[in-house]
Amino acid sequence: MSETGVTKWWGWGDEARRLTLPDSARAMLRAELGEAEPVARVELDQVAMPEARALPGPVVDVAGERGILVSHEQRVRRAAGRGYPDLVRLRTGRLAAAPDAIALPGSEAQVAALLAACESAGVAVVPFGGGTSVVGGVEAIAGPHAAVLCLDLRRLRGAEVDPVSMTATIGAGVRGPEAETALAAEGFTLGHFPQSFEQATIGGFAATRSAGQASSGYGRFDELVTSLRMVCPAGLLVTRAVPHTAAGPALRELALGSEGTLGVITSVTARVRPAPAERRYEGFMVADFESGSDALRELAQRGALPDVARLSDGEETRVSMALAGTGGATRAALDGYLRLRRRTGGCMLIAGWEGDREDVERRRAVSLRILRSAGAVSLGTRPGAAWEHGRYQGPFLRDELMDLGYLVETLETAHTWTRLPDLYRAVGDALRRSLEAGGTAPIVMCHVSHVYRDGASLYFTFIARARPGEEIEQWRAAKQAACEAIVANEGTITHHHAVGVDHAPYMRAEVGEVGVEALRALKERLDPAGVMNPGKLLPGA
Amino acid sequence: MSETGVTKWWGWGDEARRLTLPDSARAMLRAELGEAEPVARVELDQVAMPEARALPGPVVDVAGERGILVSHEQRVRRAAGRGYPDLVRLRTGRLAAAPDAIALPGSEAQVAALLAACESAGVAVVPFGGGTSVVGGVEAIAGPHAAVLCLDLRRLRGAEVDPVSMTATIGAGVRGPEAETALAAEGFTLGHFPQSFEQATIGGFAATRSAGQASSGYGRFDELVTSLRMVCPAGLLVTRAVPHTAAGPALRELALGSEGTLGVITSVTARVRPAPAERRYEGFMVADFESGSDALRELAQRGALPDVARLSDGEETRVSMALAGTGGATRAALDGYLRLRRRTGGCMLIAGWEGDREDVERRRAVSLRILRSAGAVSLGTRPGAAWEHGRYQGPFLRDELMDLGYLVETLETAHTWTRLPDLYRAVGDALRRSLEAGGTAPIVMCHVSHVYRDGASLYFTFIARARPGEEIEQWRAAKQAACEAIVANEGTITHHHAVGVDHAPYMRAEVGEVGVEALRALKERLDPAGVMNPGKLLPGA
Repeated sequence: MSETGVTKWWGWGDEARRLTLPDSARAMLRAELGEAEPVARVELDQVAMPEARALPGPVVDVAGERGILVSHEQRVRRAAGRGYPDLVRLRTGRLAAAPDAIALPGSEAQVAALLAACESAGVAVVPFGGGTSVVGGVEAIAGPHAAVLCLDLRRLRGAEVDPVSMTATIGAGVRGPEAETALAAEGFTLGHFPQSFEQATIGGFAATRSAGQASSGYGRFDELVTSLRMVCPAGLLVTRAVPHTAAGPALRELALGSEGTLGVITSVTARVRPAPAERRYEGFMVADFESGSDALRELAQRGALPDVARLSDGEETRVSMALAGTGGATRAALDGYLRLRRRTGGCMLIAGWEGDREDVERRRAVSLRILRSAGAVSLGTRPGAAWEHGRYQGPFLRDELMDLGYLVETLETAHTWTRLPDLYRAVGDALRRSLEAGGTAPIVMCHVSHVYRDGASLYFTFIARARPGEEIEQWRAAKQAACEAIVANEGTITHHHAVGVDHAPYMRAEVGEVGVEALRALKERLDPAGVMNPGKLLPGA
Repeated sequence: MSETGVTKWWGWGDEARRLTLPDSARAMLRAELGEAEPVARVELDQVAMPEARALPGPVVDVAGERGILVSHEQRVRRAAGRGYPDLVRLRTGRLAAAPDAIALPGSEAQVAALLAACESAGVAVVPFGGGTSVVGGVEAIAGPHAAVLCLDLRRLRGAEVDPVSMTATIGAGVRGPEAETALAAEGFTLGHFPQSFEQATIGGFAATRSAGQASSGYGRFDELVTSLRMVCPAGLLVTRAVPHTAAGPALRELALGSEGTLGVITSVTARVRPAPAERRYEGFMVADFESGSDALRELAQRGALPDVARLSDGEETRVSMALAGTGGATRAALDGYLRLRRRTGGCMLIAGWEGDREDVERRRAVSLRILRSAGAVSLGTRPGAAWEHGRYQGPFLRDELMDLGYLVETLETAHTWTRLPDLYRAVGDALRRSLEAGGTAPIVMCHVSHVYRDGASLYFTFIARARPGEEIEQWRAAKQAACEAIVANEGTITHHHAVGVDHAPYMRAEVGEVGVEALRALKERLDPAGVMNPGKLLPGA
């Protein structure tokens, strides 16, 4: 509960955990992207933000004087998510908004009381879990209201397992590793491991429809949730804790993805699985992105998907190796090996199987047959181990790249197999064109990491020399170009990053005018005063 | 499109298809349930119903004079679903309500025009697919409106396959066998085979969250649907045709299960699979319902579920054999066989695997190992073939039982494995108590047919001597007792029969006051005049 510098207020994760790029990687970036200007970060006390407005008395009364946090550091730490523009604003010390205060409710009843007080007093409420949104989901937007209260849910705890039904009821404020520790004590796992795993919370996973790296095997988080509790200004929504119901439209599916705009998810019941005795991750090289995609499609459609299935395009394969410092000797050795197999270059495919030994062997054998007949060349477990080692390191790498003066951001979408190739080209082209038009050569790379019988996600990472003082504009232009390419190709604006502020303008294209009206109707009934997380999810009028 | 007597107006399916019980079965029923009084059915022209009210001119204008059906037969054929009380009302010729007219829109645009005209003119609209609802889903309830228009969707046709993404876009009016025929021509199947398969439509499957007999393997219908189109009075809702999106609450999940109360689903895009080269259904005998449930749970939790997994309780096992006329010699032979295996009596478990030969063999081997270690004794493929032969015959058997003077009805629920045994006992007890209290000895039997990692469905069938002239009251008492037992045990009021009229009073218990308000808000926004299928889904004020 300490607010002292355990985690970076300006970046990702523990202060002590830094990732330093090898010299070869820095040289590669310089060569490809140009000389960047390392950016000095301001000190915490130099961060400028609007002065805190005093909360109305009734809200303070509910929280209790000691339950309300208002210090400079406490506000800075909850003023932004962890997207690139968030980090730019924090590092440059220019926050256009911050919560006026933070409450830490200790129970569902206290959440309800706080919502009631905020509704009466006209105070906006921003639910806050791990604060890892990359789409502006926790921005302190007051809307028409007098102040913004951040509801930090870390005290909503607990993890109760039903070992027979293999479900667990977990408090919204429990972080990924905490949940796994509690489950592991009884022999279970959620199997939900998104890149944000170490920081993000159960409530956040549910409110944003998080998808983990092993989603092919365990399911996305929204597929794991069987029921949940959500406190709305209008009252408590509780869905039946049953495996399935045909009793009308699925209200659980309304709360999932609602991003704090309808209410506060206080706990979820989710399916869990026996903790796997074995995890086997392997690397393969496929000729190109197209044949790799075909292999993933074949695996999915034949019911032979590994639990982890991830395909990097040629650029991501090349750049990942270079950034890891394996661009030299290791790559040369790899190329030699591949030449023996009459293959050059190519795309890295990571496949992972989890379960008991026999299950892993059996399922792996089926997958391997399909991978081999798709021309995949096995690289053994070393690339798998490297992937596993780095699976949560992306945001640490981003901190280092930003220190060096680079813009680095990710975005994602999904489409059917039929339309995936066009979407892949269109988004990549849009990002490259936008960044080049701004005078900065880009690296644009992509991977597939969530695979379905009917299609897959595309996850783009783009890097360029940041334009000092114009970082946000540069980012906005690239982001907008990519989103417009997605919309033009009828892909989804987000496969698992959610909507937040950044994607809200595209919701009309995504769900149509009638869809927006349906969401508005729900919002107006469950949150009649409009205090819940203003400015997120729904497009402006 | 002919209205002549191809299908029974008073029962199920083709006029020519009748199922006759063997004498031994009749004797068994007489012995256990008492002498029933065979009920004479009225003739079609003797069916009494309210006179048709004339539709307002603008509605007729949109449909075109020839597009409006108003004959006695046409109205009778769309006045009721196919639950027991529906059939009692039809057979006794006493319909409290019937649609005033029927329109057969030929396009989505015409659906929209009809809804607009009905909204303006204050005419209630009842969407009508196969008319197989067993919960009053197609009752011609006018609510506050002047008349009821039945929207028969049979002309919304078409089935377009994307063989690469393995999806198919299918018109709402396409019946199960028609869809399968179209898909089979391109080598695919939906794998959705509910008992209503031969009569019900794609739109109905979606609007009611239908679940098929092979749901364990292929998924329920709501799991197959990736996107859909729904015409509401407020406009057209179209969801993105992508494998998944995290863009907010799932609007697809609002349309699914909406039972015509929000709008008319005009087409759905659903995942399809390669038509299986092989289907292998086998029978097993397990010691009792509890150990059989444990075996199904083990199969599900170890990822080894057959595509079809169905477990009858002892009573259903016994009665099914007796009704099939295999209660004598075959049962004796079976008992002899089981005695050799040191087993007597027990519960029938049907398991089925579908796919290519190698896939079936591989998956079957895994399932069999688990079944054997759970003590299941294989009975070979004969019981599987018998199950397959009878998989759509339940409603034909019901016609025969009603002809003989018996009440016969089904209802279903679901719960987690932990709570399933109590729910099973409570619902069975409630049905037996209610029917006995009415002076009729009952047969109450149950099976599990939809199996999940965290729980399963329970499907009850109950039979008793009908109380002549009091059939509906007798049915209502039993149904109410069962529903109250379900609610008391926090099971779901319906796993796959939907809500309709019959379950609407229990929706408040199911989703709570806030859940009901959320559904009302959607309804009011998408159907502001409240013309869409009044009286269904939502509980009364």
